[in-house]
Amino acid sequence: MTLHLARPTAQRRTMTTTTVSTRAPAATLSTPPNPTTASLERAIEDRSSRLPGFHRLSARARQAVLVRWAGLDEAETALLGGTGALTLERADAMIENAAGVFGLPLGIATNFRIDGRDVLVPMAVEEPSVVAAASFGALLARAGGGFTTSADAPVMIGQVQLLDLPDDDLDRAAARILAARDGILDVAHRQSETLPRLGGGAKDLVVRPFRDTPVGPMLVVHIHYDTRDAMGANAVNTACEAVAPLLAEVTGGRVLLRILSNLATERRATARCRIPAAALARDGRDGHEVAQRIVEANALAVVDPWRAATHNKGILNGIDPVVIATGNDWRGVEAGAHAFAARDGRYGSLTDWHLDASGDLEGSLELPLAVGIVGGGTRAHPQAALGLKIIGAESAQGLARVIAAVGLAQNLSALRALVCEGIQDGHMALHARQLALSAGAETHEAEAVAMVLVAEGAIRAGRAAEVLGELRGGISGRPTSG
Amino acid sequence: MTLHLARPTAQRRTMTTTTVSTRAPAATLSTPPNPTTASLERAIEDRSSRLPGFHRLSARARQAVLVRWAGLDEAETALLGGTGALTLERADAMIENAAGVFGLPLGIATNFRIDGRDVLVPMAVEEPSVVAAASFGALLARAGGGFTTSADAPVMIGQVQLLDLPDDDLDRAAARILAARDGILDVAHRQSETLPRLGGGAKDLVVRPFRDTPVGPMLVVHIHYDTRDAMGANAVNTACEAVAPLLAEVTGGRVLLRILSNLATERRATARCRIPAAALARDGRDGHEVAQRIVEANALAVVDPWRAATHNKGILNGIDPVVIATGNDWRGVEAGAHAFAARDGRYGSLTDWHLDASGDLEGSLELPLAVGIVGGGTRAHPQAALGLKIIGAESAQGLARVIAAVGLAQNLSALRALVCEGIQDGHMALHARQLALSAGAETHEAEAVAMVLVAEGAIRAGRAAEVLGELRGGISGRPTSG
Repeated sequence: MTLHLARPTAQRRTMTTTTVSTRAPAATLSTPPNPTTASLERAIEDRSSRLPGFHRLSARARQAVLVRWAGLDEAETALLGGTGALTLERADAMIENAAGVFGLPLGIATNFRIDGRDVLVPMAVEEPSVVAAASFGALLARAGGGFTTSADAPVMIGQVQLLDLPDDDLDRAAARILAARDGILDVAHRQSETLPRLGGGAKDLVVRPFRDTPVGPMLVVHIHYDTRDAMGANAVNTACEAVAPLLAEVTGGRVLLRILSNLATERRATARCRIPAAALARDGRDGHEVAQRIVEANALAVVDPWRAATHNKGILNGIDPVVIATGNDWRGVEAGAHAFAARDGRYGSLTDWHLDASGDLEGSLELPLAVGIVGGGTRAHPQAALGLKIIGAESAQGLARVIAAVGLAQNLSALRALVCEGIQDGHMALHARQLALSAGAETHEAEAVAMVLVAEGAIRAGRAAEVLGELRGGISGRPTSG
Repeated sequence: MTLHLARPTAQRRTMTTTTVSTRAPAATLSTPPNPTTASLERAIEDRSSRLPGFHRLSARARQAVLVRWAGLDEAETALLGGTGALTLERADAMIENAAGVFGLPLGIATNFRIDGRDVLVPMAVEEPSVVAAASFGALLARAGGGFTTSADAPVMIGQVQLLDLPDDDLDRAAARILAARDGILDVAHRQSETLPRLGGGAKDLVVRPFRDTPVGPMLVVHIHYDTRDAMGANAVNTACEAVAPLLAEVTGGRVLLRILSNLATERRATARCRIPAAALARDGRDGHEVAQRIVEANALAVVDPWRAATHNKGILNGIDPVVIATGNDWRGVEAGAHAFAARDGRYGSLTDWHLDASGDLEGSLELPLAVGIVGGGTRAHPQAALGLKIIGAESAQGLARVIAAVGLAQNLSALRALVCEGIQDGHMALHARQLALSAGAETHEAEAVAMVLVAEGAIRAGRAAEVLGELRGGISGRPTSG
């Protein structure tokens, strides 16, 4: 059995399972199969997302594992990075004024079990600890059987704004719109050939009066539009523009805005998990106590916007990197999530955490999640198709469900760290590595410098430069800056 | 005078001003200097961000312009894209489980004049129309002298949560904390060697009681911490963890969460602009009318969360790509912006647009903007340093001010399009290009396919595949899917 890493340009190589290189000094090219690689082999064969030792492999060896796990062909493998991934020419076709390609590290979160299926999750993100935290949260949830998820039908909301209604009579205008409801929906529906055939298209219409705004009274008409496997912005905007003249005619008013809303309240996804208290035990701290503390930490996010912003930021730390890696629009998802968090008149937590009757921890996350697997960037960006293939999502709803699970895993992991050792314990080692890189350390030196800083308990830029100098066997010429 | 494009690997070339290749068919290698290139030359020499014809250049030619404009050296130029930019090895040092590098197109927004200085803005984003819209918004604002901006001192808020206070007496505990205020701030202050020397460190302390939460009464202590040119998460978290034992001792309570808030209400940035009504005239529509319509469109975002989510999403469409291109944390900025938008108990618009006495349009944007130019990803990611150099920001506040201006430009451009031709007019051409790419068009074919689709008014996936087949001189073998 071989680990295959196909690359079109350089470094084409075949590795046997005994030569998977790892960061751990014990493993060398001549090391015989050890328990870690044997269990890793078994996990790959079983298509388990629980990949023992994956995090200790070199990045190239991780690619080799991923290629086998997800069944990537040569072309797909080339998309994992390097020149073949996103060319300047392709970038130039995607956006205006392209003059470069910006790289985001692409990590693979492990351990996810979602609705009975094992999933590896590609995450494009610059922040250390995010991928590790998602994987750890998934491991905790796995102890309780993994995540259970659901997703609404992919119904987006389009808005049409109506001003200058005759006599400012919003009720009369609303009644006229509702009387013409079927005709309006029919026009919206016929804007797409594809969506109605697939069961999508215009589904409903809601009229919302605003009697007091900075420019006087107005109506807003919501068109509920099922966009199937697309995020659907284009379809919804087209439908809104198509029905606008009809709405003006029916009401005698003047149409202004005609555009979708990212507050996709008709298109929510939910994820749930149950963590046996025993799985939460840490450093001699009882698992029931840790569970209780997580509930207490969540409570502050329920009542306090300052805490809720960071609580929800942690959730989006998990969500956005998957949204990006699948070619979806993270600004839309962010806007929907945070505006939804303010739906009750106070900005609050997107999650609920509570103890069940036996003291185990139960958590849930619900948020609007407008993501697609066709259209937009999902097909125009070659790496997005790769991300979708790794996840194995076969519908927009399926993708939304995976993403919701990642958000809940990220939240769980952050809360667990915050109520136990504190966030800095883990972060400082990562911070130390960043300081080392900033001080000019080559990639292979950064780990060593970071280890020294952590061991000394002095994680500072000036000391990083000094340690780097010492590591290189000379006196550091850099001025100490802190 | 030569346009210099230094690349370490391939395609090293020197172009004279007469050979700048453009997308327009009229310009060939043998074309003599035309007005566009002459005025572009002048703009580069003057360091004007108004770069005539920049959007029509090839991506390589744009790089050459950027290299000269921003004074990039060879190493910096190499970071614009390709293998030299973010290596797999560097990605592996940045995050866990790295197995690839995900590319985001990096575009350059032009026309920005911010507080009297011309700025080119690097934007990492996958969505078509964002960079063009930012550039167009900046052009409109330029007609009124550009953007005026400001930024608070870079003060972050750290939170410490206190539970189990004796007798649930929050007032007594709060009084004790306030009595010990100086000592607590001193401990927080001394956690950094560098920041106090630079004028940063612990500045203030606020106690906030929560009498009714899902787990009973609690206190939260806010530490206001000036993190100078860093985003500052590590410094703030370290300070919070350091003062926690002291707060427990002073109050007799139990400490749980100790972490910064991304709702950085003490660290806001603002941008303003004034657009002469004449600059807004469009397709025979009077500029004053367009200005009035923009005010009317903004009014809906003030009163309606569904509209506000997308209104603010448009602002973040401008902001996030700059945040990413400078190595900052977009999830933190998003959380701060949207939670701030809900500060009055209803989620609403982040912008204000109104007419001044003479009927010209005045706009402003205010939001928390916690971004840094040192620490975090800003130095660990090699391309982030490139982004910071192009912008020329010399402080965290300076960067925040530029980013606020980009957000306001993006909003202005979106509103202008929405109230005039509608968003789809411009979007459909871009959508057509994406469909062409999705249908398998090579980059050089995509433009042609898109032009046909737009001309026919049939912007659909099936037709894109057909046109591509016809373009290639054969019968398309693809099934028509819609």
